[in-house]
Amino acid sequence: MASTLSPTPRSTVRRGKNRARTDRSELYAVLDTGLICNLAVVIDGAPVVLPTAYGRIDDTLYLHGSTGALSLRTGATTEVSVSVTVVDGVVYARSVFHFSMNYRSAVVHGSPRLVTDSAERTAGLRAVVEHLAPGSWEHAREPDAKESAATAVLALDLAEAAVKIRSGDPVDEPADVDTGGRWAGVLPVEQSWGEPVPAADLDGTDLPPHVARRAFTTIGRADPTG
Amino acid sequence: MASTLSPTPRSTVRRGKNRARTDRSELYAVLDTGLICNLAVVIDGAPVVLPTAYGRIDDTLYLHGSTGALSLRTGATTEVSVSVTVVDGVVYARSVFHFSMNYRSAVVHGSPRLVTDSAERTAGLRAVVEHLAPGSWEHAREPDAKESAATAVLALDLAEAAVKIRSGDPVDEPADVDTGGRWAGVLPVEQSWGEPVPAADLDGTDLPPHVARRAFTTIGRADPTG
Repeated sequence: MASTLSPTPRSTVRRGKNRARTDRSELYAVLDTGLICNLAVVIDGAPVVLPTAYGRIDDTLYLHGSTGALSLRTGATTEVSVSVTVVDGVVYARSVFHFSMNYRSAVVHGSPRLVTDSAERTAGLRAVVEHLAPGSWEHAREPDAKESAATAVLALDLAEAAVKIRSGDPVDEPADVDTGGRWAGVLPVEQSWGEPVPAADLDGTDLPPHVARRAFTTIGRADPTG
Repeated sequence: MASTLSPTPRSTVRRGKNRARTDRSELYAVLDTGLICNLAVVIDGAPVVLPTAYGRIDDTLYLHGSTGALSLRTGATTEVSVSVTVVDGVVYARSVFHFSMNYRSAVVHGSPRLVTDSAERTAGLRAVVEHLAPGSWEHAREPDAKESAATAVLALDLAEAAVKIRSGDPVDEPADVDTGGRWAGVLPVEQSWGEPVPAADLDGTDLPPHVARRAFTTIGRADPTG
């Protein structure tokens, strides 16, 4: 796939064109930084949006869910829109009109396919689990036949995607800057992993390295030069 | 409006019924805690989901945007779905099948109306700005006629809404608990406000109390008893 995003009319950024990014690497970075996505489908002509987990392998986004989940059943036969957003801060301006947020956002459009190939199903599920909790696929028990049969895996091609990033200072009217006397700047939003809380029924198993490494670290800090 | 949520078929929680909440106060709590929402609309038969700001007054959710924004123009004439999700942690289980997230999530369905009444437009815009940055409406310059004309305000009734909350330990298979040797528990996700970054062109205006109060505080910590 080309290293740049080639927007279709639908994925062309209309508002805030100066915030649009066209490098495929920036799409990957947003998708790999976010924790959850919002999956939108159309049911009986109306939109339905739900938060869900996801994972990525190269240019494919994987979603999973119960085979009984309405949104996934519908998604496998129709178009979906998937949004991943990382909020980096609130932008305080001199005028309320120019208040904004700093964020990194990806929106993907497409018709996912229901994954039936056994190897790809396993790879897709693994991508979702490893996105949520890196190192866990090796540590935890893999799905048995019954669990696997209860899980639907969808694959969404990342061909049609848009990335928007806003960073930095507010953009105020020159007259408001000249007038002065009002604070303007950014209040950053910071996300971090806290202290691991062992399950009440844990048998004394030590905290494994793949969880210990993650604890107390920041999540998806924006590139300060971005 | 009734103090409980009365789900329609569409807003009835189908998956994970044990996670569904029916108190209207829990809907308010999720909406007031989240920073952004994901707004889904149907355009040419396909779903489009985009992150955007919002505010709430009683049982009305307010959205704003440029009058030129496609999703808002469409949203004013058709149905929308709005999702607000707060992620509280990753749930590590003994089996990959039971990995999960702790979260608080609200999904609202409805047909928003374009607000034309001047007083309600101001109140709606104020709700959006105050949700993003409490105390800012009084501090910053209010919209002038031109800015106001460029801003669309949508009002979405909170009549049709669903709330899902997951908290606490993983739910593992008894056989996996008995086998032991695998770590299980929750790695919390913590969000906080960082250190305010003044705009490069700030005139030396001191950090005002409404921003200073927010800096270095946690964002939407889950009720530990929840």
